[in-house]
Amino acid sequence: MQALYWDGHDLSIDSSYPTPAPPSKIEDRESKIVGATGIRPGFSDGHTATVRVHLAGICSTDLQIFKGYMGFRGVPGHELVGSVSDGPEDLLGKRVVSEINFGCGQCENCARGLARHCTARKVMGILGADGAFAEYVAVPVANLHVVPENVSDEEAVFTEPIAAAFEILEQVQLNPGDDILVLGDGKLGNLCAQVLRLTSASVTVLGKHEDKLKLIKRSGVRTILLNDWKPKLYDVVVEATGSASGLQLAMSAVRPRGTLVLKTTIAGEYHVSLAPLIINEVTVIGSRCGLFAPALEALEEKSVSVTPLIEKIYPLSSGLDAVAHAAKSGTRKLLLRPQR
Amino acid sequence: MQALYWDGHDLSIDSSYPTPAPPSKIEDRESKIVGATGIRPGFSDGHTATVRVHLAGICSTDLQIFKGYMGFRGVPGHELVGSVSDGPEDLLGKRVVSEINFGCGQCENCARGLARHCTARKVMGILGADGAFAEYVAVPVANLHVVPENVSDEEAVFTEPIAAAFEILEQVQLNPGDDILVLGDGKLGNLCAQVLRLTSASVTVLGKHEDKLKLIKRSGVRTILLNDWKPKLYDVVVEATGSASGLQLAMSAVRPRGTLVLKTTIAGEYHVSLAPLIINEVTVIGSRCGLFAPALEALEEKSVSVTPLIEKIYPLSSGLDAVAHAAKSGTRKLLLRPQR
Repeated sequence: MQALYWDGHDLSIDSSYPTPAPPSKIEDRESKIVGATGIRPGFSDGHTATVRVHLAGICSTDLQIFKGYMGFRGVPGHELVGSVSDGPEDLLGKRVVSEINFGCGQCENCARGLARHCTARKVMGILGADGAFAEYVAVPVANLHVVPENVSDEEAVFTEPIAAAFEILEQVQLNPGDDILVLGDGKLGNLCAQVLRLTSASVTVLGKHEDKLKLIKRSGVRTILLNDWKPKLYDVVVEATGSASGLQLAMSAVRPRGTLVLKTTIAGEYHVSLAPLIINEVTVIGSRCGLFAPALEALEEKSVSVTPLIEKIYPLSSGLDAVAHAAKSGTRKLLLRPQR
Repeated sequence: MQALYWDGHDLSIDSSYPTPAPPSKIEDRESKIVGATGIRPGFSDGHTATVRVHLAGICSTDLQIFKGYMGFRGVPGHELVGSVSDGPEDLLGKRVVSEINFGCGQCENCARGLARHCTARKVMGILGADGAFAEYVAVPVANLHVVPENVSDEEAVFTEPIAAAFEILEQVQLNPGDDILVLGDGKLGNLCAQVLRLTSASVTVLGKHEDKLKLIKRSGVRTILLNDWKPKLYDVVVEATGSASGLQLAMSAVRPRGTLVLKTTIAGEYHVSLAPLIINEVTVIGSRCGLFAPALEALEEKSVSVTPLIEKIYPLSSGLDAVAHAAKSGTRKLLLRPQR
């Protein structure tokens, strides 16, 4: 099959990448390694499904991977919508999205419903498991969610980043009337703002790009252009700039005893004085992947709007051009579509 | 009066430093500046008291100040016990300790009982207000707490650092059976461990010094020597090493979705990859000063033991020697006693 392949140094189009083996043969090869990244069947509930990829989204984390993040090698891609081509009968042909953390199903974290914190986990396209920049991808059946009929492929492919935004609500106890500042007007900032707006909090997005802020404003969120920024203190600040430089500003905008949510995962080091966090007794919360159920529900209810975020859909065969395009500052969401 | 004076570059003994003006004259000089650091009467409830210092403790924060922390100039010292020599009649002659944050009494934080987060606050011996390395110190009456009779001066002088340890209990919701690791076997680590031990959590201290760990073990806390450390994950990790290097180890010892409490205030920058905090969705809580009431209660009930932490009591006139001594690694608590 055709797939994008990252060898640790270069990204290439591989047109003869091994298609995931059919899940019906799981028992035969329980202990064998499949694919270049060592993905094995038998995660979570012991069964994998093969998903034919309809659309896959390029995320900033993918760009970080190409800078060395997580030392990943294999097929990247962790935002997808597709249909089950091989797997349990009741799922065959169904449109699905997939949670990206593949837990061992055995450990304490998995038992607590936190497979996304399983220390033995693989993460689709990020850690030890091939991802969705390919015609087909193998995922544990337990990770699949059927996409509601009224949600298009172009919407469903945003389920993973919307879930990451909903994760904030799972981690932070918001109080009515809380003043929230989202730093960053990119895709993640946009989605975080849209999700936070569903609460009774007051949400403001601070960003650098007039056009992106205009897009956010359409969802009924207040926006401030960085050039017009007058320092003010917020109860909760969400750092979603995607760059290390956002942290300093985020720290300066959170009130004493307030909460700072870090959404940006960066390959490099931060150089920062943490003294203000201690003096102001700020609570800092690292926030990553979320559960898919509330994200799909929000898409079904049309309470978040995502398609305006799409800049372009590339054929998978032009994946290298797409990644080069994605690396350009200010680019909205780029999608890959395998062609058949 | 005699006082230690920090001019931003050097520490000196000043034997003719101005004694705080009598509080009875507050009205006359409401708008005048008193003392080298600009401390004015009229904080909090509008009244100051003059406290004759019995004992003052040298803290790591003082050593950070001598490296430039907070850009402080004036008389340092924020751990003290003394007696009221001038002030409200019902307090005259009483033995007291003093909370160190002087709030404006007007703002939102002060109204919420968080004078220690008042943005216009002064902090005794740290920010804009002279401290306790002197014969006398002026403090707002609202900040004073009378010391219970069965608590000696040598114990009471630890009220401020014990309160800082109790602050953790105010900020972190501990669950029964939580596994807590305290990093650092110094004075702060010792006190944090003793206070955390009062809960139903299981407390372990990781440190470098066998003698200090032995001291901690006496309070019934488990201890591990750094050389014997086998990586393990804890629900809560308290970073109290007093050095920037503790952060990396602290981050590696906290479980996914666990809590990391930062107690160390450092003048410099941290160089650190924050990605693990985000990937593991760790909650980081900056923790500083606490309320005095629970600390005094613990001293009164003898539920924390502090006098074994005292290494030596210096006369105030030998304050420079004491500070040099305090800077030596492994030194326990040094106290200053003004002589009359």
